[in-house]
Amino acid sequence: MSGGATDANLRLAVTGAGGRMGREVIEAAADREGVAVAVAVNRTATEPVAGVDVDSADRLRELLAAESPDVLVDFTGPESAIAYAGACADADVPMVTGTTGFAGAQLDDLRAASDAVPVLKASNFARGVAALRRAVREAAAALPGYDVELTETHHNGKRDAPSGTAKSILDDVESVRGDLDERVHGREGDAPREASEIGVHARRAGDVTGEHEVMLAGNRETLRLTHRAGDRGVFAEGALDAAAWLADSDPGWYGFDDVLDAGSE
Amino acid sequence: MSGGATDANLRLAVTGAGGRMGREVIEAAADREGVAVAVAVNRTATEPVAGVDVDSADRLRELLAAESPDVLVDFTGPESAIAYAGACADADVPMVTGTTGFAGAQLDDLRAASDAVPVLKASNFARGVAALRRAVREAAAALPGYDVELTETHHNGKRDAPSGTAKSILDDVESVRGDLDERVHGREGDAPREASEIGVHARRAGDVTGEHEVMLAGNRETLRLTHRAGDRGVFAEGALDAAAWLADSDPGWYGFDDVLDAGSE
Amino acid sequence: MSGGATDANLRLAVTGAGGRMGREVIEAAADREGVAVAVAVNRTATEPVAGVDVDSADRLRELLAAESPDVLVDFTGPESAIAYAGACADADVPMVTGTTGFAGAQLDDLRAASDAVPVLKASNFARGVAALRRAVREAAAALPGYDVELTETHHNGKRDAPSGTAKSILDDVESVRGDLDERVHGREGDAPREASEIGVHARRAGDVTGEHEVMLAGNRETLRLTHRAGDRGVFAEGALDAAAWLADSDPGWYGFDDVLDAGSE
Amino acid sequence: MSGGATDANLRLAVTGAGGRMGREVIEAAADREGVAVAVAVNRTATEPVAGVDVDSADRLRELLAAESPDVLVDFTGPESAIAYAGACADADVPMVTGTTGFAGAQLDDLRAASDAVPVLKASNFARGVAALRRAVREAAAALPGYDVELTETHHNGKRDAPSGTAKSILDDVESVRGDLDERVHGREGDAPREASEIGVHARRAGDVTGEHEVMLAGNRETLRLTHRAGDRGVFAEGALDAAAWLADSDPGWYGFDDVLDAGSE
Repeated sequence: MSGGATDANLRLAVTGAGGRMGREVIEAAADREGVAVAVAVNRTATEPVAGVDVDSADRLRELLAAESPDVLVDFTGPESAIAYAGACADADVPMVTGTTGFAGAQLDDLRAASDAVPVLKASNFARGVAALRRAVREAAAALPGYDVELTETHHNGKRDAPSGTAKSILDDVESVRGDLDERVHGREGDAPREASEIGVHARRAGDVTGEHEVMLAGNRETLRLTHRAGDRGVFAEGALDAAAWLADSDPGWYGFDDVLDAGSE
Repeated sequence: MSGGATDANLRLAVTGAGGRMGREVIEAAADREGVAVAVAVNRTATEPVAGVDVDSADRLRELLAAESPDVLVDFTGPESAIAYAGACADADVPMVTGTTGFAGAQLDDLRAASDAVPVLKASNFARGVAALRRAVREAAAALPGYDVELTETHHNGKRDAPSGTAKSILDDVESVRGDLDERVHGREGDAPREASEIGVHARRAGDVTGEHEVMLAGNRETLRLTHRAGDRGVFAEGALDAAAWLADSDPGWYGFDDVLDAGSE
Repeated sequence: MSGGATDANLRLAVTGAGGRMGREVIEAAADREGVAVAVAVNRTATEPVAGVDVDSADRLRELLAAESPDVLVDFTGPESAIAYAGACADADVPMVTGTTGFAGAQLDDLRAASDAVPVLKASNFARGVAALRRAVREAAAALPGYDVELTETHHNGKRDAPSGTAKSILDDVESVRGDLDERVHGREGDAPREASEIGVHARRAGDVTGEHEVMLAGNRETLRLTHRAGDRGVFAEGALDAAAWLADSDPGWYGFDDVLDAGSE
Repeated sequence: MSGGATDANLRLAVTGAGGRMGREVIEAAADREGVAVAVAVNRTATEPVAGVDVDSADRLRELLAAESPDVLVDFTGPESAIAYAGACADADVPMVTGTTGFAGAQLDDLRAASDAVPVLKASNFARGVAALRRAVREAAAALPGYDVELTETHHNGKRDAPSGTAKSILDDVESVRGDLDERVHGREGDAPREASEIGVHARRAGDVTGEHEVMLAGNRETLRLTHRAGDRGVFAEGALDAAAWLADSDPGWYGFDDVLDAGSE
């Protein structure tokens, strides 16, 4: 734990509390000093939390009014998240959401709440992944002409390759290095390397939670930047970091990078 | 960048041409397209270069006047470097120097030349080391509260530990992370870790040229930033990068970071 | 092997079922196809298992007689383990034990049971650690004269350094390489490396479960052998592997290496 | 240097002395105490060695007779190597050869010399690569059911992928693990992993000499075995190790593994 919430006496509302990420958030909160879960709801009645009908975000409104939590953490679906955002705006409760899959118009609906309260939306709450991406951009800019190869490793049940995080990193590299525009996924046979290539290697093995390595090589040297997630709890920890920071922020629309910027002050 | 000087048609003067780094610079120049060595001098007569008496930097002046090189690269000693800097100022030739060990007043003498010509002074010309340091500062700022451990590896003949580069990186980390102020060199026995520690580990093995890894760990994740030097030629390559950049610069006093900044534009 | 017990239809008894490792074993068994927990006891009444008085291993005898499990897995203390081993011998149930801390005479008492039933005792059930140790012995023998450096990483709450596993690996290396007999824990200052040294580096950071790397370097090359434990469940998985193998073995005294040997047939 | 030849007072003959590997061998010999080059020949007159006409291996016979070297080291082509092997048999000089590309019948011709003198033939003289392969076989046998992924890295000018060494390692793994028979070169898109796969990843970047990593993952742990060649001199060092060992051996046909076996005694 980065310690940010230690003294915060932070009282949370958690939606999707019966889902995988919701449960992780509740568990991480229990382990973090000064953090408590004041409200935990789920669309359907699910142990260990009280159920709430999504059609009546009214129920959430009642709970927010009764408990006045400092911030709400949401990992649900687009429709639920929009309804909950409305409840947050009415109850003056900041909202952190890791929900994904919004269509364009839905995103506008979500964003509307940020006129009234601070809303932070992110797709990856691992603080180290955000730090990795910053470090990669910095290094890629400082090493023009160096070859770049990305290698990621995930458990053998992951079907898509490369990972979404890998794609984000590749976008970053390409935005800094305009001369790199060809992603090569594996090599076999007579495969001369072009200067415009970025090699992308997806390893699938065992139950590795997630590992991303960017290698930059040239001039008789290599630089390797590697992030490793210990377990899925890392995302819940990042969500708590975001919640602690958002509780004291002004209304507006935020991303996870804002949390990192604050941490470096 | 390996190919940075390709189109530069860069003509070099090299001092200390018979020394270890001087020879590396000449060798790297021979391998880089568009780069040529126009002048190569050494304090004492040494193959394969013509000798020049350091007491008469006049000889260097003559050569600079005759050949008009685009930039001079110097790896010598403080006294020689100061004399050569004077010759550069007179002949309007930019100067890159990797000479170290200047006393305070000597540094002023060296710097005087930068009123007339661009002078770039650096102690480590590995581009990747500079990039590593930037990436480390970025990551350390983004990950407050994370534990930091530095591990460096060098050949078994290296006597000092930790390396000078490691110390520079530690200074960087401490400047960003005010809560870290205790460097611990190895651990043994009952050694509880304090939050203010930075662990420092110096491995000495075989003929490893040089490796530096910074690990940041917390919140169930780790971030590792690792630089590896393939061989000592990496420093000569960086000196050539600096020379190519400096040839087009205005008079002034520069460091290796300026080369990196230019590379990222 | 993850799937080793798939067809085994393996029915377990677990002692120390309320302890940390006992709970991990029960959890791992629940996730492994074909494995079931038939008996779970604890010295004191503890949820979620029935308590049993250690003074009357008679109670365990009754349960073993009633359920006839295929093998018993024990992570308790020396006194309990000895009493349970007696019950196993009487009930003809093989026993896997990870209990440590036996005094010399106690070990004889434990071992007595192995006349009647197979008993497997090990201090580290991570299969990969055992594989690492084999690989290290093989590599150290093949690379005479190479320098050896061991680096281990554990969470920042671990007090002892180096780890017990690191010490076992160092013993292995020294048994193969008679010329290495000086363990150096960290280096600082003017520290010339002696040929007889093994460098030992204990990193403590974040919540890293456990990582051990052995580097062998010489002749312009390095070989690195690295084990990483994802979480503590790895030890429970290894205990289940051992149980599956032991269930079909003859009476006798076994170690974890016997499980590995079987796996390679 | 592993030290094997230190006291050997080893006098070498080198064929193909003007070729890339021949020059490396001569250079490595100059740096190794107790080793001297007594004879250096090349098919065509090439500095810095005396030329010899391959059509007259008679010339080599004369030199071997005159100098009586302890062992001959050969990196040439099949025809030359066979002629030189005949000269070695006649002059009672052991022969180490790294020549490749023999057709079946040619190999018989080469092997004929081993009736009279010891002949050692190998395709990769990096001692660490041989040690890696042993360690990988050991680990693969000890970890049945674990997923295996191989990642290799070479300079950006290498055209073939994966490397020959990688293929040898894959053969090794498949010989130990009969359940693995599908080599997958890179992954992209919806790519569910089959249990029978070995992932193979060829990275091409900068001027990396050569790196091979085998990862075995399962049961919440990973084991990684990684070899890194510092520069091409590593192969010459291994050839000298082989020469030192072969000088004292009986007539016969040997491989590099025999050198490793000797080292471990």
